[in-house]
Amino acid sequence: MNVTKFAIPEIIFGRGSMVHVAQCARRLGAKRVLLVSDAGLERAGWVDKVSEILEKERLEWSYYGDVNSNPRDHQVRAGALVYRETGADVIIAIGGGSPIDAAKGIAILASNGGVIADYEGANRVERPLPPMIFLPTTAGSGSDISQFCIVTDVERQIKMSIISRSLVPNISIIDPLILLTKSQELIIASAIDAFAHAVESYVSRIASPFTEIQSLRAIELIIRNFKPALDARDIDALEQLSIASTAAGMAFSNAGLGAGHALAHSLGGMFDILHGLVHPILLPAVMRFNAPACTEKMGNIGRLIVGDGHHSAEYFAQAGIENLKAFFANLGVPLRLRDILPDRSPLEQLARAAVGDACNVTNPRRADVEGLLGICEEAW
Amino acid sequence: MNVTKFAIPEIIFGRGSMVHVAQCARRLGAKRVLLVSDAGLERAGWVDKVSEILEKERLEWSYYGDVNSNPRDHQVRAGALVYRETGADVIIAIGGGSPIDAAKGIAILASNGGVIADYEGANRVERPLPPMIFLPTTAGSGSDISQFCIVTDVERQIKMSIISRSLVPNISIIDPLILLTKSQELIIASAIDAFAHAVESYVSRIASPFTEIQSLRAIELIIRNFKPALDARDIDALEQLSIASTAAGMAFSNAGLGAGHALAHSLGGMFDILHGLVHPILLPAVMRFNAPACTEKMGNIGRLIVGDGHHSAEYFAQAGIENLKAFFANLGVPLRLRDILPDRSPLEQLARAAVGDACNVTNPRRADVEGLLGICEEAW
Repeated sequence: MNVTKFAIPEIIFGRGSMVHVAQCARRLGAKRVLLVSDAGLERAGWVDKVSEILEKERLEWSYYGDVNSNPRDHQVRAGALVYRETGADVIIAIGGGSPIDAAKGIAILASNGGVIADYEGANRVERPLPPMIFLPTTAGSGSDISQFCIVTDVERQIKMSIISRSLVPNISIIDPLILLTKSQELIIASAIDAFAHAVESYVSRIASPFTEIQSLRAIELIIRNFKPALDARDIDALEQLSIASTAAGMAFSNAGLGAGHALAHSLGGMFDILHGLVHPILLPAVMRFNAPACTEKMGNIGRLIVGDGHHSAEYFAQAGIENLKAFFANLGVPLRLRDILPDRSPLEQLARAAVGDACNVTNPRRADVEGLLGICEEAW
Repeated sequence: MNVTKFAIPEIIFGRGSMVHVAQCARRLGAKRVLLVSDAGLERAGWVDKVSEILEKERLEWSYYGDVNSNPRDHQVRAGALVYRETGADVIIAIGGGSPIDAAKGIAILASNGGVIADYEGANRVERPLPPMIFLPTTAGSGSDISQFCIVTDVERQIKMSIISRSLVPNISIIDPLILLTKSQELIIASAIDAFAHAVESYVSRIASPFTEIQSLRAIELIIRNFKPALDARDIDALEQLSIASTAAGMAFSNAGLGAGHALAHSLGGMFDILHGLVHPILLPAVMRFNAPACTEKMGNIGRLIVGDGHHSAEYFAQAGIENLKAFFANLGVPLRLRDILPDRSPLEQLARAAVGDACNVTNPRRADVEGLLGICEEAW
């Protein structure tokens, strides 16, 4: 094994753990917090809830909430301005991947200056960031754990992947009670995103024993808890999905992802699609493309999906993919690219944008424009 | 599940990873490093090796090496003096648990003042510590990962447990190549220590899904790799033992330990015994004592030791303990307390010291003086 790195934030996990947010900020030296979130979370009352906790601890705070799903470069710029103008010293974000990624972008600009596109790619953030505390409200993005930050470059129509160890926050506070207030669609999209993180990180070129165990565990927990979490809104199952998302975050943050997320980013840059809903369309085709390069591992994934038995890795790999397709088909989500795109014309541009995405570097099988186009054709 | 916390250092793992130590120190802002180790590692050439790496990076360094196995309070005091007098700003320790625990004690005194006994127990370290980088040279103590620091109070003849999140170092650099130079006895003692960490943390009162997976994995890896690591000095097996020790460290640092380590600390305070060699004597009796309070989990441990099959948790729990005793018997290590103590007279003092040890708090079954004495009698 080559030298491998594994970095995760301090994790505070459990029902009601949100109340610790102010003490955590204090511990990180906060005098004035910048709180980042979005309109949906304002409406759901979670922004008020966090600000009450901050006020009880007599912490001053300012707020930035102009964040879209798929956050934009200009939103990050505007947030950084608020950070500087209000003299903030710690950033807290509550939300799904979007407010958290926006908060990471704000943190980069706050201490490193420039524009967010300057930091696209791996290891381009040089100066330390302000302390960050994240409270994820979906069990999926893993952004509260990861060294990834995805921001849309509006002009170039691409989702930029920014990867840096300094994007791992200081503390992730994961409170599964928040999930009870989430829509069915968001729970599905989030769990599928976590599932894709787990699968792609497990077969990544730089997976390590430290990440593989987390990937497999996430796959297993999602398979076991997806239905009870959806059907009965069972809090125990939702909690298990939170643990799965966290495990998948630990894995992909340190092992990277692959062609599936590279394509998902290029799709998300051109069309404003809920990120998690891209994976039921792409993941089976990506797994089929990758299987020859990592049959043993794809077999292990298949075994978790299909169940035990005496078969070859090839058999389990294929059976797993078929089973997964049937599983997705039962969810009532779009299953083909043609369901979400107007026509075939963007496919080549999609593949061209994806080939240069940072996630494509760790795909287990070399995926050039032709390979990525092939995946898109299979998913059409 | 209650609110649970999980904190680990950034981990850099792999053969030859030691060369990254100077860049890591730079990244943490080092201008002048205090390097902590001991005479054994000086003789083996590892202290020279680290200092060469520091010099190549043009980092100034000073050295403190007066550390025993079971490091003493006065050694920590003397090391803190060197830290202050040389104007150090980052602490690097290379060694087994002893130099690393000494380095943690030095870090506490360097920024918090007072004497080390002031910090005995949980959460008594208030001010942030200097940045710390640890390079473990044994696959066992887990001190490079954990929030534990064990220092002997010479006058009171006890090993103090100091537990604080700030004792988690910034970076742990784990280079399995170092293990190739270790004695057979040290590999045995270290692997058994890691095994005890895994078992005790798994059944701890505050185990969480984040720690349980690491505990079980450490148990499995040690069982599978212990013999090839010893018999053939197989580097792959030694590497797996390093991974196991790291996993066990992640687990016990966050879940705590139990009566076994409480007794091991009181034994180590009164008699200067190699810590890892205490567990073959105590662990089976501790597991038998605890089994009624955590039968399901003790059954899971037994299943990993004995292998699959259709039996009850009670059966696997007992079979696991018997199997473990046979395993220890094959190692040629002391198996009974009477092999290492002069006579029965210290037993009551041992139990009295152990009952107040911080590790006893997380034991799954309440262990009072009588209970601990019973364990000692069974192990006699």
